[in-house]
Amino acid sequence: MERIIDRIKYPSDLKSLKKHDLSILAKEIRDEIIKTVSVTGGHLASNLGVVELAIALHYVFDTPEDKIIWDVGHQSYAHKILTGRRDRFSSLRQYKGICGFPRRDESIYDVFGTGHSSTSISAALGMAVGRDLKGMKNNIVAVIGDGAMTAGLAYEAINQAGHLRKKLIVILNDNEWSISPNVGAIAAYLNKIMTGRRVSVFRKAIKRFLKRVPFVGNHLYLLMKRVEEFTKGFLTPGILFEELGFRYIGPIPGHSIGDLIDTLENIKKLNDKPILLHLITEKGKGYRPAEENPEIFHSVGPFDISSGTPHSISDKKTYTDAFSEYIVRFAHEDKKIVAITAAMREGTGLSRFAKEFPNRFFDVGIAEQHAVTFAAGLAVEGFKPVVAIYSTFLQRAYDQIIHDVCIQNLPVVFAIDRAGIVGADGETHQGVFDLSYLRHIPNMVVMAPKDGHELGDMLKTALLLNRPVAIRYPRSEIVGKDIKDKPEPIPCGKAELLREGKDVVIVAIGSMVYPSLEAAFYLEKEGIDAAVINARFLKPMDEELLINWSLLTRNVITVEENVLLGGFGSAFLEMLERNRITGVKIRRMGIGDLFVTHGSQKILRSSFGLDSEGIANETIFMLKNLSRI
Amino acid sequence: MERIIDRIKYPSDLKSLKKHDLSILAKEIRDEIIKTVSVTGGHLASNLGVVELAIALHYVFDTPEDKIIWDVGHQSYAHKILTGRRDRFSSLRQYKGICGFPRRDESIYDVFGTGHSSTSISAALGMAVGRDLKGMKNNIVAVIGDGAMTAGLAYEAINQAGHLRKKLIVILNDNEWSISPNVGAIAAYLNKIMTGRRVSVFRKAIKRFLKRVPFVGNHLYLLMKRVEEFTKGFLTPGILFEELGFRYIGPIPGHSIGDLIDTLENIKKLNDKPILLHLITEKGKGYRPAEENPEIFHSVGPFDISSGTPHSISDKKTYTDAFSEYIVRFAHEDKKIVAITAAMREGTGLSRFAKEFPNRFFDVGIAEQHAVTFAAGLAVEGFKPVVAIYSTFLQRAYDQIIHDVCIQNLPVVFAIDRAGIVGADGETHQGVFDLSYLRHIPNMVVMAPKDGHELGDMLKTALLLNRPVAIRYPRSEIVGKDIKDKPEPIPCGKAELLREGKDVVIVAIGSMVYPSLEAAFYLEKEGIDAAVINARFLKPMDEELLINWSLLTRNVITVEENVLLGGFGSAFLEMLERNRITGVKIRRMGIGDLFVTHGSQKILRSSFGLDSEGIANETIFMLKNLSRI
Repeated sequence: MERIIDRIKYPSDLKSLKKHDLSILAKEIRDEIIKTVSVTGGHLASNLGVVELAIALHYVFDTPEDKIIWDVGHQSYAHKILTGRRDRFSSLRQYKGICGFPRRDESIYDVFGTGHSSTSISAALGMAVGRDLKGMKNNIVAVIGDGAMTAGLAYEAINQAGHLRKKLIVILNDNEWSISPNVGAIAAYLNKIMTGRRVSVFRKAIKRFLKRVPFVGNHLYLLMKRVEEFTKGFLTPGILFEELGFRYIGPIPGHSIGDLIDTLENIKKLNDKPILLHLITEKGKGYRPAEENPEIFHSVGPFDISSGTPHSISDKKTYTDAFSEYIVRFAHEDKKIVAITAAMREGTGLSRFAKEFPNRFFDVGIAEQHAVTFAAGLAVEGFKPVVAIYSTFLQRAYDQIIHDVCIQNLPVVFAIDRAGIVGADGETHQGVFDLSYLRHIPNMVVMAPKDGHELGDMLKTALLLNRPVAIRYPRSEIVGKDIKDKPEPIPCGKAELLREGKDVVIVAIGSMVYPSLEAAFYLEKEGIDAAVINARFLKPMDEELLINWSLLTRNVITVEENVLLGGFGSAFLEMLERNRITGVKIRRMGIGDLFVTHGSQKILRSSFGLDSEGIANETIFMLKNLSRI
Repeated sequence: MERIIDRIKYPSDLKSLKKHDLSILAKEIRDEIIKTVSVTGGHLASNLGVVELAIALHYVFDTPEDKIIWDVGHQSYAHKILTGRRDRFSSLRQYKGICGFPRRDESIYDVFGTGHSSTSISAALGMAVGRDLKGMKNNIVAVIGDGAMTAGLAYEAINQAGHLRKKLIVILNDNEWSISPNVGAIAAYLNKIMTGRRVSVFRKAIKRFLKRVPFVGNHLYLLMKRVEEFTKGFLTPGILFEELGFRYIGPIPGHSIGDLIDTLENIKKLNDKPILLHLITEKGKGYRPAEENPEIFHSVGPFDISSGTPHSISDKKTYTDAFSEYIVRFAHEDKKIVAITAAMREGTGLSRFAKEFPNRFFDVGIAEQHAVTFAAGLAVEGFKPVVAIYSTFLQRAYDQIIHDVCIQNLPVVFAIDRAGIVGADGETHQGVFDLSYLRHIPNMVVMAPKDGHELGDMLKTALLLNRPVAIRYPRSEIVGKDIKDKPEPIPCGKAELLREGKDVVIVAIGSMVYPSLEAAFYLEKEGIDAAVINARFLKPMDEELLINWSLLTRNVITVEENVLLGGFGSAFLEMLERNRITGVKIRRMGIGDLFVTHGSQKILRSSFGLDSEGIANETIFMLKNLSRI
C-alpha cells in the first residue's frame, strides 16, 4: 500500500493533504523515527512528542521563507524527514551522516543550528529584527520546551522581545520535562496553568459568593460576566508572559493536528506583538515504552522495537557510574558534601545521591550559571559543593567560575563528565575545550583520571583541597574493572611515571594515558624505548618529574583529548619556556583547530591520531624526523 | 561639633541611635562619600542612592551573622564606611587601598564578593540553603538593582528560590537605571508597578461600571470590596514575582529611614517563603550634579565638589572614542551594520551610533548571553552585527560565542573594550583573559590594534571578513593624535615589522607594541639591536614573518597585556612547535597566574614588567642568560 510519507519530500508536498491524511502521516513519521532510532540510537522521547507540531508548522507556514528554530534541537527529526532528508535519515548521527541536531550547513530549512538549550528566542528575535529592517514579512517561529524556559538566556530574550514588540511566535512545548522531570518556580507556574486550577477556583468562589448575596437579579449575573471579562487580563493563565509583553495563547493540546493548524492559522494573522503559544505535548507519544519511561528514552542507544529493551547492556561501569558510587560513599563520610546538577540528574550520575541525600541534592534546572554561583554560596557557608556537569554545558558558566568561585578561591568541585569527544551528538556537544578554558583561571586545580580507580582518588583529593577543583572524565566505560574500595588522595600536582624509557617520553592526560601505554608496547617492538607519564594534573603540573624526563629523553610527545590550542600540550610548552629549558624536541597530540563533527568516538579519535596506533605513529615520525602525513 | 559618624565604627554602634540621628548620619555618610570620590574617582550615583538602605539594613539586622550581599557591589561604599573601614576609606580604589567592590578578604562583613551583575540572588540562595542545613536562623539579604534584574542569572536564581521556598530577602533597589537607562519588558513592568496605573485603572473601571448598574444597594459595594479583595492576589503590583513563588512587598520609598526600618523589621518576622521588597530610590540622591546626570556620575574620575565638573578633561581621544567615530562612519557607508550593547551604551561608545541609527542600535539590557545569540540571529539575516562589550563582561557569553556564532561561522564582530588591565575597578573587572578564552575557539579571528589608526583599519577588516572576529583594545587614550581619515583593511593574519634588528625580536600585540618599540630604542643605547614586530593578529598568526624573524635572531620576547596561560606567547610557542622550529630562545611577558588587584594601570602594568623599562630589562636578562628577579 502506498504510504503518504512516500509522497512527501519537501514541505510544499504537504499543502494539498487533508487533515485526516496529515494524521496518518504523523503515524508514519513516528514509525520511521522509531525504526531509525532503534538502530542508530538518538533522542527518541522528545522527537516523538512534536511530530504533529512539525507537520502543522510546515503545513501552515511557508518554510524556509518562514523560519522555524528548534530549541536544543533534539526534537528536529520529524522536521528533518519533512525537509528533504528522509532518504538519508537512516544515517542519523553516524559519521558523515545527518546530524541529530539542526545544522545550517545541512539544509536551508535548518535556519539556526542548536544543541545547547534556550538559544531559540534570542536567535529568533535577532532574525525578526533583521526581517523588519529589510522590510520583509515572513514569520519566525521558535519552538522551545518548558525545561529550556528555566535558563536565563530564554528570559533575557523574552525581556527584549516584550520590549521591542516584534512579530515573533514562540511555541512553548510543554511536556513537564526538561531531560529530568522539570523543577523550579516556572515549572510550578506552568503546571498551575495546565491544571487550570486557579481560574476555576476563582469562578467557583464568585458563584458561591453571588449565591449568598440577597436581592440578586439578572444584573448580578451581568456584573459577574463583566467582572470576569474585565479581569480576564489578570486571570489569563499566561499572565507572567503577558506581563513581559507577550500575547499568551493556550494551553492547547499538542497532538491534535486539526487544532494545531487552526490555532497556527489564527496566530499567523496577529502581528502587534510577540506571541507565546502554550502547547501541551507528551514525551514519547505514540510509543508505549517511551511514554512510560521518557527519561530513559530521552537519549537511547539501539533497542528492540517491540519490547523497548536496549540491544546490549554492557556490564562495565562508565565513569558516570563510578562518579555516582564514589560521591555517595564520600557523602556518607562527610556531611558537608552537597551535590548540584543543572537538569541532568540521571546523566551526571546523581540519581542515587539524590535518593540517599535528598536534602543535600539540588537540581537547579537548566541553569548552569546559577548552578555555579549557587555552589559558591554554599561553599561560603562551609559546605563542599560538587557541581556535576557536562563539559560542553559548563561553558555557560565560564564567567561564574572565574568571578564567583575562583576569585574568592572557594572550594567548589566541578565533576566534569563527557569531557573529550562525545561522539554521535556532534559539534555542539563535544567536550573538547575544558582544559583550555579552565587552565588559565587562577586558583583552579584541574585533573583528569586515567581510569576508574583514579577518578575515586581524584574526587577524594578534590574534596580535601579546600579550593576550586575541576576533574574531567570522558563519556566512556572505565578502564579497569570496578571502582576502588578505598580511594586515597593524590598529592596535589603529582604526576605518575608509568613506564621508564630512554628514547622518548609520552606524557598523556586522562583518557589518553592507556592508549599511550599501549603505544609504548607497540613502540618497543619497533625498537623504540618510550617512557610513559600519566600527568594527572593539568594544573598545577608536576614540573619536576616532567622536566626531568624531558631532559632525560630529549623527546616529548604530549597527548590529550582536548583542542591543542591552549590545552595540556600548550601548558607543557609554557612550562619548558618558564623553566628556560631548551633543546627538547616536542610534539603535541590533540584535537586541531576545528569543530569536531558527529560520529563514533572511535572513528573521531582515530581521525586525530588519538589512539594507540596514532600515538605510536606520531612517535616514530618524530624520532625519524618525518613530517606527519 | 561632634558628628554622629565619628561615633560609628561598626554596625553595633548604630543600634542605640534614634531614627532622627540615623537621618543625620545618612547626610554625613553622603558627604564622606562625595568628598572621597571627588578625589579618588569611583561609582558615585549608585552609592548615593543606597545610603539610607545601608544604614537601615545594618540597624535592623545583626551583621555579620545576618548577611548582606550587594549585587554588582558598586553601591557598597556606605556599607564599607559602616563596617570598620571608614579610616581607610580615603584609600578607595587605590593600589593596596580598599576595593571599590565587596571583597571577602577585606572584611567579614563582605560575605560575598561581587563586581559582575546579578550574582547576588544565586549566592544568597546558596547561603540560605547552607544555613538551613546547619540549622541556623540568620537572615540573608540580597540587594539587587532593577538593571541587574534583566540578567538571566537573576532569573535562574529566582526560579529556584521560588521553588525551594527558603527564607531569603531580596531587596529590589529600583532606580529605573542600570548604568544606562534601563530597557526591556521587565523595566516596563517595574515602571508600571511604580506608577500604580493598572490598579487604579481597574478600580475606576469598576466604580464606573457600578454606577451604571441599576438597583444598586450596599450589597454591590460590598460585592465590589469582596471582589477586590479576592482578586488582590491577581492585582498586586508584584504579581510577576508572586507567580514565581516570592512574597512581594512594595513599592516603598527608599530614602526614608523610618519607613525602611519599619518595613525591614516586619519582613524579618516572615519566613514562609522568599520575599521581594521593592524599593524606590534615586541615583545620585543628595548631590545635585549626580541627581541631574546619573549616567555621568555612575563612574567618575576626580571632580570639583561645588560644581560637579571633572578636574581634568583630557582632549585626547580614548580607544572608546575612536571606536565610536569609526563605527558611525562605517555605518553610514554600509546599511548592514547594526550595533548591540548590553546596558553599556555610553561606556562602549555607542551613544552617537544610537542617535544616528536608532533602528540599527540595540541595547539588550544586562544580558551578555542574549546579546551574542541575538547578534547571531541578525547575522543569519545578512546583517553585520557589532557587539560592543567590555572584555570582562564578554566572559558571560563564552558559550554563546562558541555555540551560536563560531560553530556556524557567522559574521559577528566583537568590539572588546577595556581589554587588559583596567585599573581601579580591580579583580572583577580586569580584561586579562580574552586572548586566552577566544584563541582556542575555531573559526575565530582575534586582533588587537597598536594605536587609534590601527583600530580603524581592524574594524574595517573585521566588517569585511564575513566570519567571527574579535578586536580587543584597552581602557586608554589612543596612541597617535586622532583617528584615521580612511581606514583600510589589513590582510587577514598579516603582522607588521616595525623595526629591524639582529640580536632579538620583540613580538608584541595591541597595547604592548609601543612600549616594545620604546624598549628597543633603550636597548639600542645598551648595544642591543632589537627588531620589533606588531603581531596585530593573535589568530591567525603571521607564521611566515614571525618564524623568519625568530630564526634570524634566535631570540624572541613576546609581550601581551593578558594572562600568560593560553595567551599570545603561548600561541607563539605552539606555532614554533607546530612548525618544528627548535633552537630559538623565547621568553614570554604578560600577566602571571593570579587575579590582578585594583590600582592605577601604570602601577599594575609596571608590576608585571609590562612597560618599556620592564621589556628592556627582560630582554637584557634573556640575552645575558640571567634569571629574572
